[in-house]
Amino acid sequence: MIKIAVDLLGADRSETELLKGVLTSLNNYPDLFVYALGNKEVLINALESEDYDKDRLEIIDAPEVITNFENPMDAIRTKPKSSMVMGATLCRDNDEVGAFVSCGATGGLMVSSMFLIRPLSPSVTPVLVCEFIKRDGKNICLSDCGANLENPPEKIVAFAKMGSAYMKAKGVENPAVRLLSNGAEEGKGTAKIKEAYNLLKETNLNFKGNIEGSTVLSSDADVIATDGFEGNVLLKTLECGANSVINDIYDYANTLEGKEKEDYIAFAHKLHKRYDYNTQGGAVLLGVKKPVIKGHGAATAETMESIIKIAHTLVKNNVVDKIKAEFSL
Amino acid sequence: MIKIAVDLLGADRSETELLKGVLTSLNNYPDLFVYALGNKEVLINALESEDYDKDRLEIIDAPEVITNFENPMDAIRTKPKSSMVMGATLCRDNDEVGAFVSCGATGGLMVSSMFLIRPLSPSVTPVLVCEFIKRDGKNICLSDCGANLENPPEKIVAFAKMGSAYMKAKGVENPAVRLLSNGAEEGKGTAKIKEAYNLLKETNLNFKGNIEGSTVLSSDADVIATDGFEGNVLLKTLECGANSVINDIYDYANTLEGKEKEDYIAFAHKLHKRYDYNTQGGAVLLGVKKPVIKGHGAATAETMESIIKIAHTLVKNNVVDKIKAEFSL
Repeated sequence: MIKIAVDLLGADRSETELLKGVLTSLNNYPDLFVYALGNKEVLINALESEDYDKDRLEIIDAPEVITNFENPMDAIRTKPKSSMVMGATLCRDNDEVGAFVSCGATGGLMVSSMFLIRPLSPSVTPVLVCEFIKRDGKNICLSDCGANLENPPEKIVAFAKMGSAYMKAKGVENPAVRLLSNGAEEGKGTAKIKEAYNLLKETNLNFKGNIEGSTVLSSDADVIATDGFEGNVLLKTLECGANSVINDIYDYANTLEGKEKEDYIAFAHKLHKRYDYNTQGGAVLLGVKKPVIKGHGAATAETMESIIKIAHTLVKNNVVDKIKAEFSL
Repeated sequence: MIKIAVDLLGADRSETELLKGVLTSLNNYPDLFVYALGNKEVLINALESEDYDKDRLEIIDAPEVITNFENPMDAIRTKPKSSMVMGATLCRDNDEVGAFVSCGATGGLMVSSMFLIRPLSPSVTPVLVCEFIKRDGKNICLSDCGANLENPPEKIVAFAKMGSAYMKAKGVENPAVRLLSNGAEEGKGTAKIKEAYNLLKETNLNFKGNIEGSTVLSSDADVIATDGFEGNVLLKTLECGANSVINDIYDYANTLEGKEKEDYIAFAHKLHKRYDYNTQGGAVLLGVKKPVIKGHGAATAETMESIIKIAHTLVKNNVVDKIKAEFSL
């Protein structure tokens, strides 16, 4: 059985809305067991009219909410009955729980993960990875996407290793790793990037060299290794460029009428979905004892379903063991 | 008279093709005088059938070419008769020449500019700026876009000042400056960015705070100040995101037929032109004694026309004096 903890609070939408994603997931995966955290009374009420396998869902009463408007450290201390703290604590205390899923406050989730679930080892700096779809339809993983802003070259190598282990767990054999720089050629980049390049060559990773911003959607890479500041710039700017053109399509559609207008709008909708990395999937914190999957605050039941899918895959394919192997832990 | 030096060699297209952009520019601006550098015989032959004001075009024989395939330092030493070296030397020696325009090898142009035209003062690190179009139709200037990879906070402030002076010369009153970071709030960013933030607050610039990648096309900023590595990631990734969606439109168009197909293709062409920052405009090196406008290697006559327009504007509006004022030189 694949057991995961799911925090249903702290997102824009209600816990009962997100619960629907949990129920669909239970239907999708006969080997999935979910500990759902939220207001028990509300959830039990919502479940009354639902058809699901009662042996694979346990509701844990955790009615407090940690928000984006409070200091995360204070919040995890003062809200022991919050869904986030109780979920992370469950991951810590119950060996059978393999992953934690939440669409709640980012700061609170990061702090809960670091201080309750804990890093795999004192030498491992957990990394936040996310995926986006390349033009060939394959996914590429960005590691780090903004959790760790400034790191020495050795840490960027560690981010590359965790990104590679992640893509292996997602089914990619021998993931190709590239290092974000200002040009594709060896020797491009800051002193830090040049040193990371040299260190990456010495690893067992399938390191293919540098990648520049212009080719992130068309490269052979499965993993982009980067420090978090640049990774954050990359992720957000990529969405900005794509969304701008998608908005141009909407603007153009609004100058048209009838079927022609509808066609352009339908096309823009489809593209919007493809390039909306935030609400489609989730960012994953790796390097902690259980992977933590962070869905967007604007998550829908569908988003919940897609991030539970990630959690299911990562637990089933032992991402934590794969990371341990990279670091010989 | 606005006098500029134009290097016609080293681009993908022939000097006679690029010369056409010069002739159109001479027609556009009655106060423009161009020193055109290239193979004199070839250019004179090409001019025979052309109608232009002979008093405002001087051909300078500079038949050697500096390419991307040679060491720039060696090239400027061993090719004194190259269009690039002779153009930069003309800028150095002739006070009346206000700017240098070239679509030749980037490395050669940067080295020629730094060693022949020279920085405004030993304390000024020249910066490479470029512009792109925001969703509101206004231009935004990225300073630095990749010439200076890693700099202390004080240099990022200097890039902000030069970007602001540039936008002033382009007609923007009191340009709004923002600092690239991983979030909009004060306190976001690396130690370097936080320090640059504090320093920017102390300047006379119209500093509006941080900007993140997601809003570069929708912000109130006229200038994005950034270190070159992140600026390069931003610029290239923005194009990547936009181009990917534009290619999706072409792909979709190819599943259609007749007028519908033509409409989608025409629409994609229009967008391609808008988001193709490389071939539309040029990057501008500021902080040297004369501004240097670098057009893309794939420049057409039309590109040449658009970068001569930039040169004309910058000289006419005294961008160099505006920069000197920022640094109290």
